Amino acid sequence: MKLLEQRILSDGKVKPGGILKVDGFLNHQIDPSLLYEMALELKRLYAGEEINKILTIEASGIAMASLVGYVFGCPLVFAKKSKSRNISDDVYSVEVESFTHGNTNTVVVSREYLKAGDRILIIDDFLATGAALVGLKTLAEQAGATVVGAGIAIEKAFQGGGDLLRSQGLRIESLARIASMGDDGSLCFC
Amino acid sequence: MKLLEQRILSDGKVKPGGILKVDGFLNHQIDPSLLYEMALELKRLYAGEEINKILTIEASGIAMASLVGYVFGCPLVFAKKSKSRNISDDVYSVEVESFTHGNTNTVVVSREYLKAGDRILIIDDFLATGAALVGLKTLAEQAGATVVGAGIAIEKAFQGGGDLLRSQGLRIESLARIASMGDDGSLCFC
Repeated sequence: MKLLEQRILSDGKVKPGGILKVDGFLNHQIDPSLLYEMALELKRLYAGEEINKILTIEASGIAMASLVGYVFGCPLVFAKKSKSRNISDDVYSVEVESFTHGNTNTVVVSREYLKAGDRILIIDDFLATGAALVGLKTLAEQAGATVVGAGIAIEKAFQGGGDLLRSQGLRIESLARIASMGDDGSLCFC
Repeated sequence: MKLLEQRILSDGKVKPGGILKVDGFLNHQIDPSLLYEMALELKRLYAGEEINKILTIEASGIAMASLVGYVFGCPLVFAKKSKSRNISDDVYSVEVESFTHGNTNTVVVSREYLKAGDRILIIDDFLATGAALVGLKTLAEQAGATVVGAGIAIEKAFQGGGDLLRSQGLRIESLARIASMGDDGSLCFC
């Protein structure tokens, strides 16, 4: 999606170690008009697919999922990072490793809000190793729901998570796919 | 706002100890079409006021702030709960006590995204003691920004935080104000 690629080039910052900072418009300060255009593009890409629920993970997926939910006309559910190791029977839970923070979180969704029969679009701001996406897919499967696909803002294609999951049959639509980033601050799209 | 009050009556659950669960449409599963109507109502209430930025706090304020930002046509910034006690010079920071979780968090905003001259609308899903609202106001003031007012989904008026802050001159528009909740599950609006 050209609009997002241009915004990454103008406002994103490439940091050493494969880090892309998009704090200025995607995950700290957020531009809702950009998110709205991204949601419209996902609506176009998933036209003809029956989707009744958006699933994302706190915190930075929530903004994009909110606009996607608005455009798709369906509710969103966000998986919460659990504070306690004692997981109640009322939730589905899964362990998710964070590439950014270098730790592992237990994330949970109330059983009340994921059901067999749900047809789910997973939304997240980043796809790198695919850990968060696999976690969300696992939560949906625990509920017996169908994952129709995923909608990602920025895929770091060079980290391989997206292609691995595609080869396993998951549909993933990434609005910007990054082929490479250099320590000199350079960035190439696929 | 009648639409929100009706939704609280139909889908909210009053729990002992002054807890109102609105997990089904506001802060776990979220209804974006309701948030959109709430954003339009805030736009009407703040008509004529110059506002260039929305400020909220993770995680459950982000969804509402995203739709408010979309309707107001301005960016949102969300204050992040800091994982470390070592706060860098790049951020504004404040301590916020959580009524729901019974703990205290350090929340931070990058200095890059709050500026003197900003005219800010603070958004949050709940107002009870006012701790989160005071924290967000403090962050804005650290930056020299002006807080035009606050837009709240649900105010627990019986906890007094809202009226205390109003008496200090802060404009607060709450879309549903709860006068009382009983241990029998009853609930009255102001």
